[in-house]
Amino acid sequence: MPAHTEQHTATTPAPSGAAGGTTPAPTVTVLGLGPMGRALAGAFLDAGLRTTVWNRTPGRDGELVARGAIGAGSAAEAVAASPLTVVCVVNYDASDAILRTPAVTEALKGRTVVNLTADTPRRARDTAAWAAEHGVGYLDGAIMTPTPTIGTPDGVFLYSGDTELHRAHRPVLDALGGTHTHLGEDIGRAATYDVALLDLFWTAIAGYTHALALARAEGVSAQELTPFAQGIAAILPPLFEEGAKEVDSGRHSGEGNPLTSALSTMTHIVEVSESHGIDASVMRSAEGFVRRAIAQGHGTDGFTRLTEVLDDRR
Amino acid sequence: MPAHTEQHTATTPAPSGAAGGTTPAPTVTVLGLGPMGRALAGAFLDAGLRTTVWNRTPGRDGELVARGAIGAGSAAEAVAASPLTVVCVVNYDASDAILRTPAVTEALKGRTVVNLTADTPRRARDTAAWAAEHGVGYLDGAIMTPTPTIGTPDGVFLYSGDTELHRAHRPVLDALGGTHTHLGEDIGRAATYDVALLDLFWTAIAGYTHALALARAEGVSAQELTPFAQGIAAILPPLFEEGAKEVDSGRHSGEGNPLTSALSTMTHIVEVSESHGIDASVMRSAEGFVRRAIAQGHGTDGFTRLTEVLDDRR
Repeated sequence: MPAHTEQHTATTPAPSGAAGGTTPAPTVTVLGLGPMGRALAGAFLDAGLRTTVWNRTPGRDGELVARGAIGAGSAAEAVAASPLTVVCVVNYDASDAILRTPAVTEALKGRTVVNLTADTPRRARDTAAWAAEHGVGYLDGAIMTPTPTIGTPDGVFLYSGDTELHRAHRPVLDALGGTHTHLGEDIGRAATYDVALLDLFWTAIAGYTHALALARAEGVSAQELTPFAQGIAAILPPLFEEGAKEVDSGRHSGEGNPLTSALSTMTHIVEVSESHGIDASVMRSAEGFVRRAIAQGHGTDGFTRLTEVLDDRR
Repeated sequence: MPAHTEQHTATTPAPSGAAGGTTPAPTVTVLGLGPMGRALAGAFLDAGLRTTVWNRTPGRDGELVARGAIGAGSAAEAVAASPLTVVCVVNYDASDAILRTPAVTEALKGRTVVNLTADTPRRARDTAAWAAEHGVGYLDGAIMTPTPTIGTPDGVFLYSGDTELHRAHRPVLDALGGTHTHLGEDIGRAATYDVALLDLFWTAIAGYTHALALARAEGVSAQELTPFAQGIAAILPPLFEEGAKEVDSGRHSGEGNPLTSALSTMTHIVEVSESHGIDASVMRSAEGFVRRAIAQGHGTDGFTRLTEVLDDRR
């Protein structure tokens, strides 16, 4: 973990009812009640927070209200109810449409928004500029784990933006359980990690589904292949660690696994796929980068050389 | 593990010197002395086997001969020295060029070849037909782990072909250490697993290098991103297991992660990449399959639906 990030595992606060003290329960607002928004609101409720909820399409708050949430009549009313508003909608077009209305912007002045909506770093920076202009505290965030992990130790949350602002709202965010990492003050960092990690995830998933299609065409079932596919996933983390050092240092050692050998393998994969009428365009693209690296004289380098070949400007 | 495969972990035989008995040391021949061939021959020597070696380009056997290997003057002489010959060269063009000469074919009659060379299932079937025609026992194999794992418990070896033939030569192959799995009598199975698993591996590696290039363009170093990338690798095995059941059953549940949501993510990845001049053709291909699945009415399905979309004949 680099020095400027701060990671901690949430210790869920005791429900306010159990505390029996005089301090009022902390409050939070959740905008957006899709599956993830409902999971977030549910986790806040379970942790004893006074939780206000709102969704553009009405009728999504029924179960949450039954569990004690306050259903707001408008987004402005919802954000006015709490110092902290958590937004989780489909993308920033949707979050902008909610936040950047005169009534909501006015109600947010002096309060804080944590936007857990997934989009690009550019959109996060753009929203941060809007927030700064209107006196709204703004943190960007990303949720790296699926809905069922929310409220459990398995949830992984990333944040970027002002360090003090993050620290001030950490106790409320901790109610979501799991691991919370503040990645730094550059507001685009959470979205960058999110997009890069999902790039790895979805490319790997594309590879897995392709491997299953290829195996099936040769008479091997998905469940036969999968114990070995799990073995492939298990060898990735040490390769990632070694590769990261090479990429950051600009040295691309191909010791034991040069790109020339990868090319031979990729050629076989394309050949077998296409002999069965299975599209091999993903592997053909990857193969093209390997060929380009070899043509540039990097055939004895390892796979990390591809980070350079992919980037036109390097 | 399906019922018709047989997996076991090698218990390395005691070196013949240590046994002190009267049974002669088992013998084996290794053809091909690239890095992997040398590792195989070295592991046989370490296990006390009388090991004959040969390589097309001379001068590769020096270190092995110094360790006790017998350097043969020709491939025919090499295969005549042992009941079992292990071949590990660059591809089947190379192994055919060695095995399918009159002298070698004649010398192999009544003996067995285990071909650990990587190539396609079609080539394995073709070589098996040649072997059957010439009275040569033939097993196909694949090595799923890198050179340093050979002779250690971490090696993973796959075989296909005649069950009894495999059983007869298992004690010698066990000297290579690691886990040895006989995948069935269809001679193409080892190559199928090999190609499919390397398909997953190289696609995932392409995704990782792309994620690193994207992160770098946004100011995030490889070593900053990688602990989280390792977290992505860690969530794959249970998804693979769940996905394999869906693929084999033909049901593609998108519960919590429908293709429509994957498409939104993929669009962000392409946008961020291309805004930095980073090629996104791998993700564009994957995105195309997701769009096609959605256009076919499968937007609420999960990622396993892609196994169908990839295959033109389904």
